[in-house]
Amino acid sequence: MARRGLLLILSSPSGAGKSTLARRLMDWDPTLKFSVSATTRNPRPGEEDGVHYHFRDHDTFRAMVAEGQMLEHAEVFGNYYGSPRGPVEQAMREGRDTLFDVDWQGGQQIRNSALGQDVVSVFILPPSIAELERRLRGRGQDSEEVIAGRMAKSQAEISHWAEYDYVLVNHDIDQAARELITIVEAERLRRARQPALVDFVRGLDTEFAALN
Amino acid sequence: MARRGLLLILSSPSGAGKSTLARRLMDWDPTLKFSVSATTRNPRPGEEDGVHYHFRDHDTFRAMVAEGQMLEHAEVFGNYYGSPRGPVEQAMREGRDTLFDVDWQGGQQIRNSALGQDVVSVFILPPSIAELERRLRGRGQDSEEVIAGRMAKSQAEISHWAEYDYVLVNHDIDQAARELITIVEAERLRRARQPALVDFVRGLDTEFAALN
Repeated sequence: MARRGLLLILSSPSGAGKSTLARRLMDWDPTLKFSVSATTRNPRPGEEDGVHYHFRDHDTFRAMVAEGQMLEHAEVFGNYYGSPRGPVEQAMREGRDTLFDVDWQGGQQIRNSALGQDVVSVFILPPSIAELERRLRGRGQDSEEVIAGRMAKSQAEISHWAEYDYVLVNHDIDQAARELITIVEAERLRRARQPALVDFVRGLDTEFAALN
Repeated sequence: MARRGLLLILSSPSGAGKSTLARRLMDWDPTLKFSVSATTRNPRPGEEDGVHYHFRDHDTFRAMVAEGQMLEHAEVFGNYYGSPRGPVEQAMREGRDTLFDVDWQGGQQIRNSALGQDVVSVFILPPSIAELERRLRGRGQDSEEVIAGRMAKSQAEISHWAEYDYVLVNHDIDQAARELITIVEAERLRRARQPALVDFVRGLDTEFAALN
């Protein structure tokens, strides 16, 4: 039956496994639409425009915001980040779900947008801060200063955990992935996401009427 | 982590597979507490007091209602049915979920009770009315009049499908059972049902503080 697409917001501090979980979810259901953020920051090595981010200059980004093309946007460390509205609305028309990898500010704005009723939000917590730091250092490509900055941002991000519908603690990536998939499967079964049920029940009523 | 128990309300017209699904759910998680209804109707062959129902006379039942011992109650075909409050509150204290096999009136009353915020409600629809009638007749122990009465009650029950959080169409009992289990698994991951997360996040904050 045709469904009403949902907006799945995934937030977590950097290093809690969010990107891996997003990838696992996309592997499980390739019809999920990943919301590619727009940003004014420079591409890092290996990042492709339109795949990892839509890379835009400041003027273009501001114009998009002014024209209402952004579902949400925020400034982080002097750069703008935002979620373009068009692809999300198209996915919803097609009955497809959209996955957002955004921070608490992005999550808050999407929840407070006109599409707020379609939001399901999930926060991923690390099992410990020691483990979080280990994962952040594991990338081995950043200075102490950058790591200290990320840890401070992680603490701020975690402080918003209670704004989310669901909370997973990523003790084990396989279990966390299963839990995330379970949440999406269940949310798809919500009455409000199955508009075709209205016609289905009307059909049952017609059958009843034919009996009498 | 200790959870806050939920109240799972399962409703459907007679013959849509609700009892089988309830049993499957109990097999999957034997810690689920099944809410045994109290009733004033006479036991059918094979029904045991305290297992299938708490069989009570009218005076006793009315006294229980008057003393606030019933979470909900209703009159159906001249008999009273109701859900005793005590076992539900005990299950919640133990962090266990309670399963209610009730009709729309019972569901409505539990949702509107003081425990309403802990309710998750699921409605089971039959794939067709022809199939519903086939299953009702399959029992082969009832008169045409009784079957006609049940079909009329089924139609009334189905008219309340839109009051439920989740709706399953029972095309296939195995799939419907999997879907029901998925709903319970996901609902247990809701932030509001994991009060222990407050202490867990406090622990993360302490770890952060120790870093600075």
